[in-house]
Amino acid sequence: MPDDATPTNTEWVLTISCPDRPGIVHAVTGILVQLGANITESQQFGNPDSEHFFLRLQFVSAATEQEIANALRPVADELSLEVGLDRVGRPVRTLVMVSKAGHCLNDLLFRQRSGQLPIEVVGVVGNHTDLAGLAEFYGVPFHHVPVTAESKEQSEATISELVDSLDVELVVLARYMQILSAELCDRLRGKVINIHHSFLPSFKGARPYHQAHKRGVKLIGATAHFVTTDLDEGPIIEQDVARVDHNQRISDFVALGQEIEARTLARAVKWHAQGRIILDGQRTVIFR
Amino acid sequence: MPDDATPTNTEWVLTISCPDRPGIVHAVTGILVQLGANITESQQFGNPDSEHFFLRLQFVSAATEQEIANALRPVADELSLEVGLDRVGRPVRTLVMVSKAGHCLNDLLFRQRSGQLPIEVVGVVGNHTDLAGLAEFYGVPFHHVPVTAESKEQSEATISELVDSLDVELVVLARYMQILSAELCDRLRGKVINIHHSFLPSFKGARPYHQAHKRGVKLIGATAHFVTTDLDEGPIIEQDVARVDHNQRISDFVALGQEIEARTLARAVKWHAQGRIILDGQRTVIFR
Amino acid sequence: MPDDATPTNTEWVLTISCPDRPGIVHAVTGILVQLGANITESQQFGNPDSEHFFLRLQFVSAATEQEIANALRPVADELSLEVGLDRVGRPVRTLVMVSKAGHCLNDLLFRQRSGQLPIEVVGVVGNHTDLAGLAEFYGVPFHHVPVTAESKEQSEATISELVDSLDVELVVLARYMQILSAELCDRLRGKVINIHHSFLPSFKGARPYHQAHKRGVKLIGATAHFVTTDLDEGPIIEQDVARVDHNQRISDFVALGQEIEARTLARAVKWHAQGRIILDGQRTVIFR
Amino acid sequence: MPDDATPTNTEWVLTISCPDRPGIVHAVTGILVQLGANITESQQFGNPDSEHFFLRLQFVSAATEQEIANALRPVADELSLEVGLDRVGRPVRTLVMVSKAGHCLNDLLFRQRSGQLPIEVVGVVGNHTDLAGLAEFYGVPFHHVPVTAESKEQSEATISELVDSLDVELVVLARYMQILSAELCDRLRGKVINIHHSFLPSFKGARPYHQAHKRGVKLIGATAHFVTTDLDEGPIIEQDVARVDHNQRISDFVALGQEIEARTLARAVKWHAQGRIILDGQRTVIFR
Repeated sequence: MPDDATPTNTEWVLTISCPDRPGIVHAVTGILVQLGANITESQQFGNPDSEHFFLRLQFVSAATEQEIANALRPVADELSLEVGLDRVGRPVRTLVMVSKAGHCLNDLLFRQRSGQLPIEVVGVVGNHTDLAGLAEFYGVPFHHVPVTAESKEQSEATISELVDSLDVELVVLARYMQILSAELCDRLRGKVINIHHSFLPSFKGARPYHQAHKRGVKLIGATAHFVTTDLDEGPIIEQDVARVDHNQRISDFVALGQEIEARTLARAVKWHAQGRIILDGQRTVIFR
Repeated sequence: MPDDATPTNTEWVLTISCPDRPGIVHAVTGILVQLGANITESQQFGNPDSEHFFLRLQFVSAATEQEIANALRPVADELSLEVGLDRVGRPVRTLVMVSKAGHCLNDLLFRQRSGQLPIEVVGVVGNHTDLAGLAEFYGVPFHHVPVTAESKEQSEATISELVDSLDVELVVLARYMQILSAELCDRLRGKVINIHHSFLPSFKGARPYHQAHKRGVKLIGATAHFVTTDLDEGPIIEQDVARVDHNQRISDFVALGQEIEARTLARAVKWHAQGRIILDGQRTVIFR
Repeated sequence: MPDDATPTNTEWVLTISCPDRPGIVHAVTGILVQLGANITESQQFGNPDSEHFFLRLQFVSAATEQEIANALRPVADELSLEVGLDRVGRPVRTLVMVSKAGHCLNDLLFRQRSGQLPIEVVGVVGNHTDLAGLAEFYGVPFHHVPVTAESKEQSEATISELVDSLDVELVVLARYMQILSAELCDRLRGKVINIHHSFLPSFKGARPYHQAHKRGVKLIGATAHFVTTDLDEGPIIEQDVARVDHNQRISDFVALGQEIEARTLARAVKWHAQGRIILDGQRTVIFR
Repeated sequence: MPDDATPTNTEWVLTISCPDRPGIVHAVTGILVQLGANITESQQFGNPDSEHFFLRLQFVSAATEQEIANALRPVADELSLEVGLDRVGRPVRTLVMVSKAGHCLNDLLFRQRSGQLPIEVVGVVGNHTDLAGLAEFYGVPFHHVPVTAESKEQSEATISELVDSLDVELVVLARYMQILSAELCDRLRGKVINIHHSFLPSFKGARPYHQAHKRGVKLIGATAHFVTTDLDEGPIIEQDVARVDHNQRISDFVALGQEIEARTLARAVKWHAQGRIILDGQRTVIFR
């Protein structure tokens, strides 16, 4: 959360979702005019199926967060708005969970350092230690939390504690090869992004590249999605594919797939950190 | 132009471009609230380089076109708005110009008939007669306007007369292998879309697939752009590419390229007919 | 089938599949050297999983088809080769089956006329009459074969007779909305190509764009595959995708999907007609 | 270079280019039959324009490199073959040259460690020291070779010495922001791969993303090519693109472009290290 002592002329991002009805944009922009704000970016979407309306605004204003929130409250109450407000570019506190494969972690950490991702990776959790060195290179604490059938409950408690103690806002499963319990999924709902190594809903479950190779598909893909209790069924954020042919073996699928996974996950994390993703039932609205 | 006797609850598309300043969206949406309009789609963009602001709104309203125009006038004057107003889905009167290759014409006519393109092709002009039968199949009058060095002036006069007599709003150069004169370009500025068979600015001018093959590129492309007096330099609307390899000959480039050309041009024409393209100097804002 | 009275210096395409073992290429190319042939194109693939070997050769030779076949026979017997031999560019006799949507038929007929597809469409079968005019425009006989629960058996008999009487080598289901019986599938095994309007194995069965929209995917696709008795499970020939977003409705998916379907099917048909597809169990080897 | 004491049943890659004529494949595969070799992969291409023939074979054989070379010599002499012979998977000794931007270096080093690239990065040369830490993390010696107008000659001498003393087989310009002298280009001809941050031949020279943004293109790209004395005109190995829109600023182009650059360069390096690239005049034959 941004504090109140923000500098003048901060840029803010405001996200709104609500039941659709006339006058929403005019009402909200009216508040911004009162606040002396200048809108720098705006996107909206009315879903005729769900009859819900979604709005994302970026604006520059000298008002404090508290002043903005106060000004919005009457309209928010009247129109039943779900409101999100944040400073543009504020690094989102992120916990990355991994197993042995480092391509997604490497990509996220490199992009963060390059200034391309508005996140701060506050910790890396691995159920193996293979990636401790990579985390260390980027100056991020590595937590080894092994998971066995017996230790699973204890391991999840440890993860929950880390989420709390580190003020984690976003958990990224960067090829973490364990399934989170329903309890943890529920607790972190809307805050956990996973990368699945197939073009969902094709090839759910284990070893998707093996499944894809066996089926003889001509494109393989990856899917970044929010984690829900329904495995591989959470709202899709982003997907991408690449072409394969008969000549490529499963190991080629894996190597090519890693490239797709890394860039697909990075986009999803970036959009989430920039407040560009709003949930619309089982679907996502992405204001790119 | 839509007439005034529009039915109640028509859907309208409003496009605005103007110098950027605070309060534009609030002012415009205020007018819409007064008119009892409900916004169904909205996109905006402020270009920090040109300091211009662009807005596209779709809204449903029972007001007539005249009433909407009257209501907008004071705000338009105050904020120096360039305003476009049209009924959503009104077929744009379109003249397609061709030579011998029919892939783009075939695609446009098929899409129009399928209801995918909000245009009405009111005529086809060909400097050859090869495509007369195709036009006829779709019930569109074909005008044979041959062009030679000597007849060029006369030919362009004929085209100008067709544009006038047919109330043409959009001219599409669908692989028309003649260059329009500077006079005609100026007269029809912002109303002529061309498909160039390369990924501009690569391979301007003649025989781009030959140039591309010689250079050994690994992707070939097509570019839909507005026609200006500066050949192949007009504002780009859309581009697309496809992969090629050493094994493909120039004739393969041409065949694959035709597929890219047709779909690239169709997108550009569709967006133009839907009022999704606004000029921003030498660049285009595309509200997809 | 090519006849024997072929002109001198014909270009031939030879396809071979067999159990893998050393010396195959040398043995086959040895025959070609004896025949005074010059290889113009060659591709091969050994599948280490199925331990099968696949070869496609194009060569120029003055020998007759019978002479080539005779020369190959001893090697074919010794190495258990499955051999295919045809003249390059010979138009494959093709029957296109349609319902109401014409985008694939239009694309195939246009490409055939443009010389881009080495097929001869010898007939169009429609269970509706909507596309009779399009077939007629291209000079192709249209056969109206309505299908109801009661008439299905009779309809399939009619189709079988057409396949026989027209010497059909390839049947293309160009958005034909009926399921072929197991008998017909078996009879025409390896000779029927279907276009499914999803990225298989996602969204098998009916109304895939509806399924895709509901699931909130970010890419939609199409799949060209051989038809087998196992619905939507036949060997995949080609797939392609395009990007969609939350803003697009099912009708937008359909329109965009038609473009993907048409080009994906055209590629599959072209490769088949050029002898570039060899079956490898449930997968395809595509020698592009 | 592979030594002679190779283990039995080594897998070899053989590349051949020569003037086209009948019988080449049969002659070469005849040698392999004599050597008791089993072909595992084969691709060939005859360029009808240049009348040159290109062949790449992988085969397993118990023969030593010397035995293979000896066996090939008579055929090579008779048919004027240019022959390349190497062990499959032998890491190619690679020198990576960088300036300040680390995305390509990071990608190459990560892929090498993951076993995805058959190269051994034997050194990193930087004209700045920004990336010394990254090289160190991967255990690769970093050489700081600053370049100024005055020191250029001396700097290139240093680089030449490194190439010699480290037995460098491939030099990768991984966003190295200096132009190599004509002398060095000539000395290392066919051994230097550069990544240019545009879709060549569009936007040659400096600041291509700025040029692309100004021109208002709808796709940006990157090009991996061999370095020749003719700047940005060397034979193209690989190109890729990504979609941009009016909303994206130059910094967005740069960030997205880095992703394209890294994967495009990685592909080019991999193909080169696998012996999949053969020069065909100003073009490349890529046997993927």
